Amino acid sequence: MKKTIITISRQFGSGGRTVGRLIAEKLGIPFYDKELVENIALESGFAPTFVEEHGEHSPGRTLLSYAFASTGVPGVMNGLSTADFLWSIQCSTILQIADKGPCVIVGRNADYILKDREDALHVYIYADLDYRADRIVRLYGESEKSPVARLQEKDKRRSVNYHHYTGRTWGASENYDICLNTSVIGVEEAADIVVSLIHNMK
Amino acid sequence: MKKTIITISRQFGSGGRTVGRLIAEKLGIPFYDKELVENIALESGFAPTFVEEHGEHSPGRTLLSYAFASTGVPGVMNGLSTADFLWSIQCSTILQIADKGPCVIVGRNADYILKDREDALHVYIYADLDYRADRIVRLYGESEKSPVARLQEKDKRRSVNYHHYTGRTWGASENYDICLNTSVIGVEEAADIVVSLIHNMK
Repeated sequence: MKKTIITISRQFGSGGRTVGRLIAEKLGIPFYDKELVENIALESGFAPTFVEEHGEHSPGRTLLSYAFASTGVPGVMNGLSTADFLWSIQCSTILQIADKGPCVIVGRNADYILKDREDALHVYIYADLDYRADRIVRLYGESEKSPVARLQEKDKRRSVNYHHYTGRTWGASENYDICLNTSVIGVEEAADIVVSLIHNMK
Repeated sequence: MKKTIITISRQFGSGGRTVGRLIAEKLGIPFYDKELVENIALESGFAPTFVEEHGEHSPGRTLLSYAFASTGVPGVMNGLSTADFLWSIQCSTILQIADKGPCVIVGRNADYILKDREDALHVYIYADLDYRADRIVRLYGESEKSPVARLQEKDKRRSVNYHHYTGRTWGASENYDICLNTSVIGVEEAADIVVSLIHNMK
């Protein structure tokens, strides 16, 4: 089966975003990362309505700060929490992006949202803890928390979010078609494996 | 890092054994599957001693029938249950096989036993349930149990055994360097990806 849409799920610090960007460049297709998907969601027909109608319920706070707040009272829209409302917007956005044609989508549980599309290849990028710790310090600098503590917090948040919205276990190989450990394989080689696979499945 | 030893862990019915055999053929290196490892363990210095010294504790039953019996009173050797004794033999056997040089080893939790060898690449082969069900009927024929029930039983046994001896979760991508879904990628292509990876890491 020909695969034209590639979803990249990745551990924080594994280089998954870079793998995704390289794949998109090598295949000459659009690349959507987490932020881009969120921006498109906000720019879609949903968000202006949401902001207009429900802005008064969230004085001084943006949609995204509500959606990802770990504490505080969540806003409620049409019976949905802010996080659930954002989830529904992002599902629609990702389904629309996929309908537009070949692309690479990083993050936002796109593997689950597009699980029924037979033209989608689902990739998971992960790496050993030491490799990720070195990488996030190099890319994002030091912070008060140790790099390992930052990774564990991120891993936990992604895992909880993924399980909440998909019912699946984060990092279980069965959710994906191919899983690549960049600390062993390398970021460039991981991208090359996926590109080669896409070519060979045509 | 150059990788010369390849461990293949696999779901029953996924074609993992065939992937391993193809990799060994293409690389021109020895291939050890589950049965071969067990035979070598039995032919090693351990087993004759075991049989000679402890045979009287297991009249009419072989070492292997004890080791894998799901019921009955286990034999005890030097404070170890039969299964634990076999595990220790298999650990030694796999470590010895790896010391002999480049090879492919299928099954027997070799990914865990060789986790500290930097020259080992750990591969996990899995597949969707429908694909595996079709495959086991084609390869092994029908039986009283439905193919899905046979797969679920095998999956559960491998998962429990793996967790008991390694403390890890079976099928979690983090245990491996690369995980490949043969129902999407294909058995031949999965072997080619690993062979290409081995060549490129040299």
